Amino acid sequence: MTDATPLDGLIALLARLPGLGPRSARRAALHLLKRRDALMLPLAEALAETARSVKTCTTCGTLDLTDPCRICSDDTRAEGPLCIVEQVGDLWAIERTGSFKGRYHVLGGTLSALEGVGPDALGIPKLIARVQQAGTGEIILALNATLEGQTTAYYLTEALADTGAKLTRLAHGVPVGGELDYLDEGTLMAAFSARRSVE
Amino acid sequence: MTDATPLDGLIALLARLPGLGPRSARRAALHLLKRRDALMLPLAEALAETARSVKTCTTCGTLDLTDPCRICSDDTRAEGPLCIVEQVGDLWAIERTGSFKGRYHVLGGTLSALEGVGPDALGIPKLIARVQQAGTGEIILALNATLEGQTTAYYLTEALADTGAKLTRLAHGVPVGGELDYLDEGTLMAAFSARRSVE
Ligand SMILES: [Zn+2]
Ligand SMILES: [Zn+2]
Repeated sequence: MTDATPLDGLIALLARLPGLGPRSARRAALHLLKRRDALMLPLAEALAETARSVKTCTTCGTLDLTDPCRICSDDTRAEGPLCIVEQVGDLWAIERTGSFKGRYHVLGGTLSALEGVGPDALGIPKLIARVQQAGTGEIILALNATLEGQTTAYYLTEALADTGAKLTRLAHGVPVGGELDYLDEGTLMAAFSARRSVE
Repeated sequence: MTDATPLDGLIALLARLPGLGPRSARRAALHLLKRRDALMLPLAEALAETARSVKTCTTCGTLDLTDPCRICSDDTRAEGPLCIVEQVGDLWAIERTGSFKGRYHVLGGTLSALEGVGPDALGIPKLIARVQQAGTGEIILALNATLEGQTTAYYLTEALADTGAKLTRLAHGVPVGGELDYLDEGTLMAAFSARRSVE
C-alpha cells in the first residue's frame, strides 16, 4: 500500500494506542483483517458503543454506564473511607483486590505547575465540599509513589486538614517509583490493609 | 466495573490484539476514552471502513482496495521477477525498501503437516499455473529463515522446477531464525540485491 488508503489510516490510528508502535500496529491490522467478523467488526462496534454509553461520574470521576456511578450509588459503601486515586485505572486495580468497600475520588492526574495543572483541574475544591457534606471519617490517599503523586498527596494533606477526616496513606509495600496499576493484587492488598495515619 | 459492560467487552477485544495483554488493553481503553472524538470514534470508523473496503487480491493474495491489486494491475511490474512471500506484512516490508519492481505471490503461511496446511491451502497449484501462463523468468523465494519457511522453500523449489523459471533465494544477511517483518530496511535491501540462484 503505497498511497494513503483506509488501511494506512487504520494503522496510523492503531499506532497511537499505548503499547503499540508503527510495526506492531501493522501486525495488529493484518491480525484484524484475517478476523473481520470475529474480531475487527466487533471491535469497531465495541469502540463506538463504549464511546457512546460510558460516562464520567460527576461525583467521583470514574467511568460507568450511569452517573452517579454504581459505586457512588451503592448505599452499603457510604459508611466506608473515601479513597483518592490519580486515575480510573488505579480505581480498577483497587477494586480487583476486593478488599476496599468505600467510595472513591478520581483526581484524573497530579498537580503540575509545569503543565498548568492546579487544584481546580483535579476537582479538589469539589472534593473538600464532598468530604465536608458527607462527614467522611477517613480519607485514604492512594496516590502513586512517584514524585508527582507524593507532591499531590502532600498538598491534599494540607487542603483536607480542616475537614476533620482522618488522613491515611497506603503502607509501604508500594515500590518507590512504582505505579499502582502495575502492582500484583497481593502486594496492593497488603499495602491497603497496612495503611497508616498521615502525621 | 464489576459486571459485564461495553467497556469490559472492549477491553476483552483489545486484549486479543497481538502485542496487547489484559493490562495494556485496560490502559488502551482508558487512553481511548480520554480521546473519544480524536481517536476512539475515528478508530471505530477506520476499522469498519477497512473491513468493508479492503479486499484480498485473487491473483497474488495481498490486501488492497481493488482486485486485482495495484501491484498486479501495474504493467511496468509485469517484466520483473515474481517474489514469493509468506505474509502480506512481508510484502509490505519489501515494498518499503523500494528496491523491488516485480510482482508477488503471498502464500498466507507455510506448509505444516501438523496443522494440516498443504500446497492447496497456500495456493501453490494456482501459483504454478500463474508462472507457466506468464512465462516468468525469475522466481525469488523470499521466505522467512525459519525451519517452516525453509521447508516450504524447499518444497517450492521442487514444485516449480519444471516451469523453466530461474529460482533464487534471498542472500544471507537475513539472520537465521529471523522474520522478514522485523528486519531493518537496509538489511532487507542488501539481502534482496545479493539474492543468489537456488542450486
Ligand atoms: Zn462515582
Ligand atoms: Zn495482486
